[in-house]
Amino acid sequence: MTYTVAVSGASGYAGGEILRLLAAHPDIEIHTVTAHSNAGQPLIQHQPHLRSLAHLTLQDTTPEILAGHDIVFLALPHGQSGQYTDALGSVPLVIDAGADHRLTSKDSWDAFYGGEFHEPWAYGVPELLVNGAKQRESLRGAARIAAPGCNASTVSLSLAPGVAAGVIDPGDIVSVLAVGPSGAGKSLKTNLLGSEILGTANPYAVGGTHRHIPEIRQALAAASGADADGIRISFTPVLVPMSRGILATSTAPIVGDATDAQIREAWESAYAGETFVQLLPEGQVPRTADVLGANTALIGLAIDRAANRVTVVTAVDNLVKGTAGAAIQSMNIALGLPEARALSVNGVAP
Amino acid sequence: MTYTVAVSGASGYAGGEILRLLAAHPDIEIHTVTAHSNAGQPLIQHQPHLRSLAHLTLQDTTPEILAGHDIVFLALPHGQSGQYTDALGSVPLVIDAGADHRLTSKDSWDAFYGGEFHEPWAYGVPELLVNGAKQRESLRGAARIAAPGCNASTVSLSLAPGVAAGVIDPGDIVSVLAVGPSGAGKSLKTNLLGSEILGTANPYAVGGTHRHIPEIRQALAAASGADADGIRISFTPVLVPMSRGILATSTAPIVGDATDAQIREAWESAYAGETFVQLLPEGQVPRTADVLGANTALIGLAIDRAANRVTVVTAVDNLVKGTAGAAIQSMNIALGLPEARALSVNGVAP
Amino acid sequence: MTYTVAVSGASGYAGGEILRLLAAHPDIEIHTVTAHSNAGQPLIQHQPHLRSLAHLTLQDTTPEILAGHDIVFLALPHGQSGQYTDALGSVPLVIDAGADHRLTSKDSWDAFYGGEFHEPWAYGVPELLVNGAKQRESLRGAARIAAPGCNASTVSLSLAPGVAAGVIDPGDIVSVLAVGPSGAGKSLKTNLLGSEILGTANPYAVGGTHRHIPEIRQALAAASGADADGIRISFTPVLVPMSRGILATSTAPIVGDATDAQIREAWESAYAGETFVQLLPEGQVPRTADVLGANTALIGLAIDRAANRVTVVTAVDNLVKGTAGAAIQSMNIALGLPEARALSVNGVAP
Amino acid sequence: MTYTVAVSGASGYAGGEILRLLAAHPDIEIHTVTAHSNAGQPLIQHQPHLRSLAHLTLQDTTPEILAGHDIVFLALPHGQSGQYTDALGSVPLVIDAGADHRLTSKDSWDAFYGGEFHEPWAYGVPELLVNGAKQRESLRGAARIAAPGCNASTVSLSLAPGVAAGVIDPGDIVSVLAVGPSGAGKSLKTNLLGSEILGTANPYAVGGTHRHIPEIRQALAAASGADADGIRISFTPVLVPMSRGILATSTAPIVGDATDAQIREAWESAYAGETFVQLLPEGQVPRTADVLGANTALIGLAIDRAANRVTVVTAVDNLVKGTAGAAIQSMNIALGLPEARALSVNGVAP
Repeated sequence: MTYTVAVSGASGYAGGEILRLLAAHPDIEIHTVTAHSNAGQPLIQHQPHLRSLAHLTLQDTTPEILAGHDIVFLALPHGQSGQYTDALGSVPLVIDAGADHRLTSKDSWDAFYGGEFHEPWAYGVPELLVNGAKQRESLRGAARIAAPGCNASTVSLSLAPGVAAGVIDPGDIVSVLAVGPSGAGKSLKTNLLGSEILGTANPYAVGGTHRHIPEIRQALAAASGADADGIRISFTPVLVPMSRGILATSTAPIVGDATDAQIREAWESAYAGETFVQLLPEGQVPRTADVLGANTALIGLAIDRAANRVTVVTAVDNLVKGTAGAAIQSMNIALGLPEARALSVNGVAP
Repeated sequence: MTYTVAVSGASGYAGGEILRLLAAHPDIEIHTVTAHSNAGQPLIQHQPHLRSLAHLTLQDTTPEILAGHDIVFLALPHGQSGQYTDALGSVPLVIDAGADHRLTSKDSWDAFYGGEFHEPWAYGVPELLVNGAKQRESLRGAARIAAPGCNASTVSLSLAPGVAAGVIDPGDIVSVLAVGPSGAGKSLKTNLLGSEILGTANPYAVGGTHRHIPEIRQALAAASGADADGIRISFTPVLVPMSRGILATSTAPIVGDATDAQIREAWESAYAGETFVQLLPEGQVPRTADVLGANTALIGLAIDRAANRVTVVTAVDNLVKGTAGAAIQSMNIALGLPEARALSVNGVAP
Repeated sequence: MTYTVAVSGASGYAGGEILRLLAAHPDIEIHTVTAHSNAGQPLIQHQPHLRSLAHLTLQDTTPEILAGHDIVFLALPHGQSGQYTDALGSVPLVIDAGADHRLTSKDSWDAFYGGEFHEPWAYGVPELLVNGAKQRESLRGAARIAAPGCNASTVSLSLAPGVAAGVIDPGDIVSVLAVGPSGAGKSLKTNLLGSEILGTANPYAVGGTHRHIPEIRQALAAASGADADGIRISFTPVLVPMSRGILATSTAPIVGDATDAQIREAWESAYAGETFVQLLPEGQVPRTADVLGANTALIGLAIDRAANRVTVVTAVDNLVKGTAGAAIQSMNIALGLPEARALSVNGVAP
Repeated sequence: MTYTVAVSGASGYAGGEILRLLAAHPDIEIHTVTAHSNAGQPLIQHQPHLRSLAHLTLQDTTPEILAGHDIVFLALPHGQSGQYTDALGSVPLVIDAGADHRLTSKDSWDAFYGGEFHEPWAYGVPELLVNGAKQRESLRGAARIAAPGCNASTVSLSLAPGVAAGVIDPGDIVSVLAVGPSGAGKSLKTNLLGSEILGTANPYAVGGTHRHIPEIRQALAAASGADADGIRISFTPVLVPMSRGILATSTAPIVGDATDAQIREAWESAYAGETFVQLLPEGQVPRTADVLGANTALIGLAIDRAANRVTVVTAVDNLVKGTAGAAIQSMNIALGLPEARALSVNGVAP
């Protein structure tokens, strides 16, 4: 069976990556691509790397045009997906790459986003621990899926095993992320110009204001079975001169008398058998180059007894495992297809 | 009066930067440049950007060749500077850009470096708080100066004000640094190749093994007047694709009931009147581009009540304020020259 | 049917890319990977992005170990492949990614390479015009294939249509290439260090000394049916700070009274129907980002009447269409498999 | 004597670089900085690297505010400088970093720019050969100066010596330039976003449409004493991922029986004694890193007998020697100050 697909936001980075992956998916037929101001133009004008889709023209993003497909991907700025919820009621599977359906707490939504609150959908991070099970279970047969925030899922995957096992204290997490500018989208902002990005490291949203913070707290609370109030995180993203990638360095205090073996076992058992989330052998740490273009999250774990902290370094491609790959992987699960279909575990390096 | 100078390690990055700054110093005459394997070759072959020094030829690095100058700069791998100490006894001012004379604790030296321990010299970070005074005092008239480790001085300057004022807890510091590869020198290692550095973030020395850790603990202990045992730091450097620069994100728990005003006042008072260490206004954070080529450390301070941590983001040019600029600034102080001579407060951007 | 494969030089960049592509090839089983100094180590230590090949260990590069496979890839420095020719006599298909079997002229070999001359093999650029046909014909059923030089094939594909059609004069070609450092391999040379590559453009082999020059002249002579003596090219490569990619700007004088339509028609007809070599519509030029990770060569063509020159700008990924992709595409042709199998036409961008 | 200065366009890249250089100039007092949409904001908000100018506030760009200074710098988009000409009649020295006063030919202006034509001013490339003399002569005591186009001056300096000496044929020049995006200014365009610039080479204005072409033809015509009609150039700029820098590769046919010695002598004699334009020794080529932040143009010359072309590779910092440094150097000459004052010959590398 082949599923027909529409992708909105198709002229942007997230939409483009969804299309790149879908173009290689044997069960998918890309019918419709939509945009806002770029509607009417050839897709290839905005995504010149998608040669196999050169025949597609961007249409308007309207409920009418999106409806009538088996699957609809929404790659829109937050606050815009929600309005399509009702209109797309007859679409069997809708996957939102935006933030509108990620948070379960209206208070958190109000504090970090604002505007109308929308109900949470199944969260598209299959490998995430949730109350002793995996998030994957919620995705089987799901009709509505929220792809994760790229930074959020990276940090959540980094720490959930230790939190769930009770070997690290989620009450004093510190995460600092080196991130590429593609995560900010194709926005025309001065601080995203090449001249401002090249040769420099540029922190932003410093001091607890980044919108992915409540998403991390929600995920780690679910992993631990505790309340999100007990999850506290100092979170600082730093733009660095690479187009893609997140290298998240996260640390948390070691709990009580957890041994090195117990700590390592928490991560090993959490991700044993997972294709796309891999714990590296002791002493190894990942680079973002290793996962470029891949749906893989690579995790390096170090135990720093002098600092009494566990340090977890995780590399993902923000546009793949962080966004589009998570969406496709979740789609595969929802449809009952092989989970890894059309997704690569190997990065493009150097 | 003009001082004659010899610079060893002149074909490397630190040596090259010392020469770049000295070449613009009106009180300095660069007499001698030395190297090891590159001796006998023109300096310009190894430092093609130093056009004004094209007449110099690299000589052997020997005590005899270095002696007989007013000032000698040692830009050598750690473990090599110490051997020149005795031989350069008659040189009025020796400044070591290496690690051999930074640490006061033989135990720390043994644990992180190994090999012969050498006595500590005056530490070349003038703005650093030391027991209620500034490190600057120890540099006036000094005959032997140890330039700091670039990462170490960046983190120490970031946190010393809060530690000294007692508003942050130095017992649970977390620092993550985005650093350019020039800090690693011209070493021929696979992981430093351009193909391995471009487009990727690459952590190293994860888990408490980086050699600058004891230097930070020593400096913060001196700032607080306490023992280094009470200073604990989780320290992770991440190589990112910029040739120069350190962007250090450091956090520490807020102590007790310190108010926002008290916290900010700690940094404001510490660096009021300093030319080269500047606290940015509330809500602002620095980029490394802002200090490229400059001797400036720019500090952004955020108070994260949700995480109960202060976040300090500091940008320096690792080769200037982190190494060569610190050396020249300390030299100026030692000689009684204007402290800022030949040093720029303005960066080269974009 | 599944073919067994051995890849030598598997710890290098070309070898790694061959493996990345083969790992996704349904007809190939990667049996053996070999190296020189790295033999005995896990492949994943040197190719940490090739997660699906983490089970492989690097063996010694010897004729004995390479023999006994259906296909052997040689990704060795030039001068080293030749020695395996005899020893691999029983291997049905050998593909050399090095230079040893590319040149038909011993004089050119002596002038640009030196050392023993080896007989030329089928040249792995299927789309290249050769005496009115395509190079593809020579690859069908071939047992020995020479993958092209990355810069050479890029320039040859750029200009062959115009040369073959007689609309440009091959006697005064000028090509300037922006190239990423991965083309130079994992060599430990100072000028390839990240600090030397970041933030700078760095020309090399200026003035007619680059080894790919005779390869271009040979290919364009074959395209035109004329002698290589009549092909003259000023060729300058410039290293720029991107890990992968070649952006070749090539110009040649317009011949006589060739009209714009005639000129454009030369390229259009040459590449009509080709999957991996695409002429962009008038007014468009390619970026290397558009072909990153892809086997695609994108060609932009402009006719500059004021300068009386045609300008052809071509983008390829040096490791894919320039090397490993060319090798796999040629292998597919030789084996009678679908030519595009395991090769992507879409790039990874941004 | 101290000269008062006003700089318009002070929130842009060219304006920022003029300010960076002027801030270190002992004879200059920066009184006024102006902008358009950013007027009313602190300069430091837009130029966070100019710490020594943190006290300045951006004012409106009006003739009234600019007038009343000894020197006015115009760093405005082309077409905007001209309108100030009359209004600034009483200002002793006006230096335009824009294009409005560069071209002597109204036809060229109409063809490449359009809009009102303005009279040409003294051209700010002191080292350029003009009818057997140097452009420097026209700048002594000049009241109105046009700083050059960055690409134009780079190519003109590259080839003028050979054209003037008659050893190369200016009728078939080919220039390809690797350029950093800062040359395009702080414009909010999608193709200038960091995500579009990182990891890719991106040609533009291909096929003879770049606006610097008539400027080059004019300069080389002046160098040769011939008409601009005889100067033909194929000119292609390629954006590469470095914030600053131009690496221009220019070739031209060797004329008749010019010997290697005659060719080399043309460049040697042209630039003998020049501080800021330096011919490298035979066999050497420059990198843009060598001139970052410096006012230096480094020229490498190769003679390619097989191609019958001279290849000239020239590196400049587009914002310094290409724009702001050229402006300051010209100012120094106009005012009778030492020509090199406040300008560095040494680059910032790595």
